[in-house]
Amino acid sequence: MHFEPALPLQSGASIREYALTFETYGQLNAARDNAVLVCHALNASHHVAGRYAGQDKSEGWWDNMIGPGKPVDTDRFFVIGINNLGSCFGSTGPMHVNPDTGRVYGADFPVVTVEDWVDAQARLLDQLGITQLAAVMGGSLGGMQALSWTLQYPERVRHAVVVASAPNLSAENIAFNEVARRAIVTDPDFHGGHFYEHGVLPRRGLRIARMIGHITYLSDDVMNEKFGRELRPPTLPASQGALPPQGALGPIGGPSALAAPLAPAYRYSTQDVEFQIESYLRHQGDKFSEYFDANTYLLITRALDYFDPARAFDGDLTRALARAAAKFLLVSFSTDWRFAPARSREIVKALLENRRAVSYAEIDAPHGHDAFLLDDARYMGVVRSYFESIGRAQA
Amino acid sequence: MHFEPALPLQSGASIREYALTFETYGQLNAARDNAVLVCHALNASHHVAGRYAGQDKSEGWWDNMIGPGKPVDTDRFFVIGINNLGSCFGSTGPMHVNPDTGRVYGADFPVVTVEDWVDAQARLLDQLGITQLAAVMGGSLGGMQALSWTLQYPERVRHAVVVASAPNLSAENIAFNEVARRAIVTDPDFHGGHFYEHGVLPRRGLRIARMIGHITYLSDDVMNEKFGRELRPPTLPASQGALPPQGALGPIGGPSALAAPLAPAYRYSTQDVEFQIESYLRHQGDKFSEYFDANTYLLITRALDYFDPARAFDGDLTRALARAAAKFLLVSFSTDWRFAPARSREIVKALLENRRAVSYAEIDAPHGHDAFLLDDARYMGVVRSYFESIGRAQA
Repeated sequence: MHFEPALPLQSGASIREYALTFETYGQLNAARDNAVLVCHALNASHHVAGRYAGQDKSEGWWDNMIGPGKPVDTDRFFVIGINNLGSCFGSTGPMHVNPDTGRVYGADFPVVTVEDWVDAQARLLDQLGITQLAAVMGGSLGGMQALSWTLQYPERVRHAVVVASAPNLSAENIAFNEVARRAIVTDPDFHGGHFYEHGVLPRRGLRIARMIGHITYLSDDVMNEKFGRELRPPTLPASQGALPPQGALGPIGGPSALAAPLAPAYRYSTQDVEFQIESYLRHQGDKFSEYFDANTYLLITRALDYFDPARAFDGDLTRALARAAAKFLLVSFSTDWRFAPARSREIVKALLENRRAVSYAEIDAPHGHDAFLLDDARYMGVVRSYFESIGRAQA
Repeated sequence: MHFEPALPLQSGASIREYALTFETYGQLNAARDNAVLVCHALNASHHVAGRYAGQDKSEGWWDNMIGPGKPVDTDRFFVIGINNLGSCFGSTGPMHVNPDTGRVYGADFPVVTVEDWVDAQARLLDQLGITQLAAVMGGSLGGMQALSWTLQYPERVRHAVVVASAPNLSAENIAFNEVARRAIVTDPDFHGGHFYEHGVLPRRGLRIARMIGHITYLSDDVMNEKFGRELRPPTLPASQGALPPQGALGPIGGPSALAAPLAPAYRYSTQDVEFQIESYLRHQGDKFSEYFDANTYLLITRALDYFDPARAFDGDLTRALARAAAKFLLVSFSTDWRFAPARSREIVKALLENRRAVSYAEIDAPHGHDAFLLDDARYMGVVRSYFESIGRAQA
């Protein structure tokens, strides 16, 4: 959907002649009161559910959650997936032309915040004729948008579902974002954010950024379970494969000679892949660097850094959330060390202190922050029950 | 000390005509039984204690622990600090000339392991006429060397002090090392590890590596306490300083306008420093990139990755530690998520199953992995008591 009028941004800048890409699933009912807006996190888009015709691998990023008969049942709800401003999956972003200059935005794309995204989403809903959402939902950064909706447009949201999120980033969260940004910005191919016109991409920086991100999305437990200290590619035991170099089996002559066949040989290299986890991370980094925009990475991580609704209230989250009128479901995951359960509990506490209706589920799951995207019977069950209760209240 | 004979390495390679830089503190007694060897971690050296004449800021890295009247009392013990092979603080490393080729080693410096370092340290002790150590001690990677001493030379170690260490790296530990290495190796100024001859240094990569490392050395708690979400440089409240751009104080007209003077203005930039933690990390990265060698970074992180004494025993740490004859003190820190207390407890358990004498202290300290370098009354007290008991047994 194209928007002519300028959207004022929190920074004081504005953006005009922008487009928002979105998808919808299910039918808007006659009362126009069954709409559910789904907000995405860093590396996702408007394509939240289903597959495109003839593209088997085009599954939406929350397809396990949203669809006919699924926890967010599109037989009952009209679901809207939207790609945010500044992203690189269809909506206006740094790779598009600035109408004020006729040049590609690049690093000149204005800094956008969670609040700006919510404002843009509200304009889209205006155009769709949706006055009030049955629910707004999201995980991680998407959860921040859901929370912000209840503060910016309290009368337009009946329910907010905030998954694996936080009321702001901790210093450590910001630190990880900053290292990723520095890797991108100091890549010689970044060219100050105007790499498009040089015909290059700062792939080195994007790879590093993604590798760092991936570590923070997983738990130590699940990494040990999936990869542990396994070597890559799996090598044969020394007795069956190539002979290891002399001395490679440990300094302890007796026992290690005895145990030798159990331990495959190290390659002894600082630059080659030795462990499975290295291979996995390099692969994730390579893939990401092929399709993700470097300026988008900067913008979205900065939106994360800036989000802090309590900031204008001297850090008092309870006062900050006083404006919220929605009912809430919050979900967190026990091994999520990026947005730990304690961060969700801060939101729950502040809502309860404002006497808001809030349900909270802390799911014991091993997958770290990524758990919000994965199947887990208890997690899916909680969301399903919550949306069933929304449906019943409407019926 | 210069060594002519080749040192065989675990990789099957060897290194000849190498030098080890070391310092000693206190006096070796007539019985030659009061020597304490101190092993260093990634970013440290032989200079463990004291200051160089006329250099006020040249304090040794474990000066709070080692010196006259300190927990490791140099009035009683003869302390030896040694710089490891492949490091960049004096001992033979990648920046030195390979006697076989007449060219600077660079990336061709052989991969060295914890076991190789211990072998090299043992040769130094041979030259110093020290048959048996009163104790070997170290923190982090230094603790791995102390543990390895008890396995490689069980008869030469009476006590091992292993602080904030682990029996091997977890997948997550390896992952952080790998991202740091990729940042260095993919820096165009790395030149395949032969940057010396190009007259450049891969500073970009080293900066990123150090920033990642720093995050893992600190706890989330101490980062929040030291930096939190503070802006940098501290900005005046909007009412006293420059006016923020329009709209910068939040989307909520009423309350945020009211609260405006409390919240300093964001700059809304993706590349400039906005938060204190960013400034801190950039500074750490810049400093490090001025003095640390990139090839050394690769070598030392790889030595960490490879260390795994249980590997030759099908992962059975109890069997792996059966050779140890020393008495042990292990110390861990509650908020250390890099080498968490659980990793030290694995060592304790394996030693106890071998009926070895082991003392273990888990210190409740907020500083994360860095705690092993910092003053903490209980930590210092535990080490002091342990060394006093060593001294009494000798007296």
